[in-house]
Amino acid sequence: MLKLKLPIIVVNFKTYVESTGLNALKLAKICDKISRETGVSIAVAPQTADLYRVSSEVDIPVLAQHVDPIKPGASTGGILMESVKEAGASGFLVNHSEKMLKLSEIDFLINYGRQLSMVTLACSNNINVSGAIAALNPDMIAVEPPELIGTGIPVSKAQPEVVTGTIEFIKRINPSVIPLCGAGISSPEDVKAAIKLGTMGVLLASGVVKAKDPEAVVKSLAEALLE
Amino acid sequence: MLKLKLPIIVVNFKTYVESTGLNALKLAKICDKISRETGVSIAVAPQTADLYRVSSEVDIPVLAQHVDPIKPGASTGGILMESVKEAGASGFLVNHSEKMLKLSEIDFLINYGRQLSMVTLACSNNINVSGAIAALNPDMIAVEPPELIGTGIPVSKAQPEVVTGTIEFIKRINPSVIPLCGAGISSPEDVKAAIKLGTMGVLLASGVVKAKDPEAVVKSLAEALLE
Amino acid sequence: MLKLKLPIIVVNFKTYVESTGLNALKLAKICDKISRETGVSIAVAPQTADLYRVSSEVDIPVLAQHVDPIKPGASTGGILMESVKEAGASGFLVNHSEKMLKLSEIDFLINYGRQLSMVTLACSNNINVSGAIAALNPDMIAVEPPELIGTGIPVSKAQPEVVTGTIEFIKRINPSVIPLCGAGISSPEDVKAAIKLGTMGVLLASGVVKAKDPEAVVKSLAEALLE
Amino acid sequence: MLKLKLPIIVVNFKTYVESTGLNALKLAKICDKISRETGVSIAVAPQTADLYRVSSEVDIPVLAQHVDPIKPGASTGGILMESVKEAGASGFLVNHSEKMLKLSEIDFLINYGRQLSMVTLACSNNINVSGAIAALNPDMIAVEPPELIGTGIPVSKAQPEVVTGTIEFIKRINPSVIPLCGAGISSPEDVKAAIKLGTMGVLLASGVVKAKDPEAVVKSLAEALLE
Repeated sequence: MLKLKLPIIVVNFKTYVESTGLNALKLAKICDKISRETGVSIAVAPQTADLYRVSSEVDIPVLAQHVDPIKPGASTGGILMESVKEAGASGFLVNHSEKMLKLSEIDFLINYGRQLSMVTLACSNNINVSGAIAALNPDMIAVEPPELIGTGIPVSKAQPEVVTGTIEFIKRINPSVIPLCGAGISSPEDVKAAIKLGTMGVLLASGVVKAKDPEAVVKSLAEALLE
Repeated sequence: MLKLKLPIIVVNFKTYVESTGLNALKLAKICDKISRETGVSIAVAPQTADLYRVSSEVDIPVLAQHVDPIKPGASTGGILMESVKEAGASGFLVNHSEKMLKLSEIDFLINYGRQLSMVTLACSNNINVSGAIAALNPDMIAVEPPELIGTGIPVSKAQPEVVTGTIEFIKRINPSVIPLCGAGISSPEDVKAAIKLGTMGVLLASGVVKAKDPEAVVKSLAEALLE
Repeated sequence: MLKLKLPIIVVNFKTYVESTGLNALKLAKICDKISRETGVSIAVAPQTADLYRVSSEVDIPVLAQHVDPIKPGASTGGILMESVKEAGASGFLVNHSEKMLKLSEIDFLINYGRQLSMVTLACSNNINVSGAIAALNPDMIAVEPPELIGTGIPVSKAQPEVVTGTIEFIKRINPSVIPLCGAGISSPEDVKAAIKLGTMGVLLASGVVKAKDPEAVVKSLAEALLE
Repeated sequence: MLKLKLPIIVVNFKTYVESTGLNALKLAKICDKISRETGVSIAVAPQTADLYRVSSEVDIPVLAQHVDPIKPGASTGGILMESVKEAGASGFLVNHSEKMLKLSEIDFLINYGRQLSMVTLACSNNINVSGAIAALNPDMIAVEPPELIGTGIPVSKAQPEVVTGTIEFIKRINPSVIPLCGAGISSPEDVKAAIKLGTMGVLLASGVVKAKDPEAVVKSLAEALLE
């Protein structure tokens, strides 16, 4: 299994026009370049249809945004873990607040991911859910209060107790799980605050994808991790 | 919009190991080769993660197995129509019995597909549902009684009245919709029976994907359309 | 099967506090009283848990707001058609915009409803979907553009062409289906406009449930049907 | 909030014909009678539409089989917690394997249930999921390997390590949660084994509902708890 270098910046491409197809490739190359130049660990999560194209041309880790809780077989339209792995993904997000899953599905995906040597980055919407997911033993958990996603208001500033509460609860239930900070992250200050609270990195999307100058933003975020 | 040549054989790759990743590419190349050699229209429907890789290397039409009823934006994990289009798909299946959709979603996808010049191949599970979908104006409808899918028992033989009933109901509601025959198709006889009943082609999966010699099977099916 | 008298006013209780439990009973009795006094046909659709209590104490038709596409068996938590029938419902809404269903589920429910002699009132969100549902042969179809639901802006005024388009498309596909008008209905004028456009009644909710004086509103709506 | 007396037998009526409508009432009365005669704690979980009718006529606790993760408002067809409470339910099952929920929904329902003083009995399909749910703090957790449900093969005999593993994991994460044993329970021996393994009761369905003589079965199960 790929061992992600920490701390890490994970850029979720979502389904924005600015990060679809050729645009996904361009954005991933920017992240790849900044990671190489700064030495900071950056991973990208493009859409399923863009995984092969992106992973063929960058060296940084590529994660799928979602996989379906299925095994190979007759599941027309399903996103099979084996397919995203062969398309170059070394892991996947699970239970993002825009793609929430059943508890038993999260459990299945984390286990099956481990069998296939895929890194799992689970998302949680509050402290208790972070603890619940920790019991399922993913590699990482990003806590993201849904009401802050896409707002530019960082959880690290608006609700720091959610971040620290998550870290404590995770530590008590399963200390091997790595906590990340999501929701509203867009500036170097947000990144520094997230690290200061005790997380090992950030998960963000619109702050980079919708930026006028994504390269400048990614660079500033990476440099914040160097200080 | 791509104008599919009729009659047509559509091969659904589903999520079988035999048609994932590199295997998807091999199978698509076989279909491409047979189509070129025989002049028979063949389309392939690989998984989302394989669309780019497959479409980059074949000339036959490539369809997505499914797209989600979303527009560009914040839909982490969603399969965006724009993404599969840019990955080389010229159309998509909608409402396959293994990925059934809400009625309003089918309506959305058919309309949005037309706006993006994507061919729509809707699946139905019985005569009435075929009629209902015809009212939504897709390009093609494949009728597939779910209990026959993957059985090797062709609907054209087991329930020919479902096929002819579908054709009649579609014709009455929306004569521009092209009827196809799915479920249990695996032999040249099945293809001929489907055409004789009045359909313009077949949708099949395991009959090709799980065959010991897929090339021989695809060739025999194509030749059945030449007679 | 119960033969509903037309034209009809159908009051959907949704899950408002004002129409839950004892409040559901009070509101249903108001509708029962006005129906008796005016001779106008009124039906009520309380929540599943309130069906027995309400139907035991009123004479007007009681409809379920939803039933699940299941048959008797092991479906913990499912809303079984047989259970709402035995609780006194003589029919049910299907595919309300707040509970949209898969196409094949709508088909199942309409058929199974007919087998159990239950009246089916399907909801559609636009003209094409109205036509699609007509092919499935429910007893009634209420067209409700989702963007108008709960607004107090009646579809009969804001988008009369959706209502007349629905009526025409239904008539062409299945003239036995009775068209109703939903979405934004709250005043006697809205009811009259709906009838004038060619529907046989209205489906409404907040206009009655959230009214300061529900009895006065129901009475005024009923009287609008008498003119 | 109702304080359930332990140990307890919880009878899930599911959606069987034998436990719908009038049959639900009869079965609940049998459980009520045996509970009174033996002094053993028994709760029943009838369908939503039967809650009012059943709770009006028995003294034992009545649980809903499911409630939807909604608050009062415009959710046509939803099962509102307030509605089942007013219909006489003093608690509800959550995440039964036949009605599995999203993790965030389970979290919502347990919290909202506590606010409304409703007892929550969560179901889990394996040890890890039991631990995850314990972090969400329900009143009880019943572990039920799905493959054993309805088989008559008791988990206490087939997979005792799942039961003991669940008890240990729950105790470590949240010792206030009460463990129950589900799946395949049908005989007095199964009940005794479940108690011996450390659970505080059983959740069962077909073993009682589909029995030729439900009263004799309920009696024998209750007596097993007296020994």
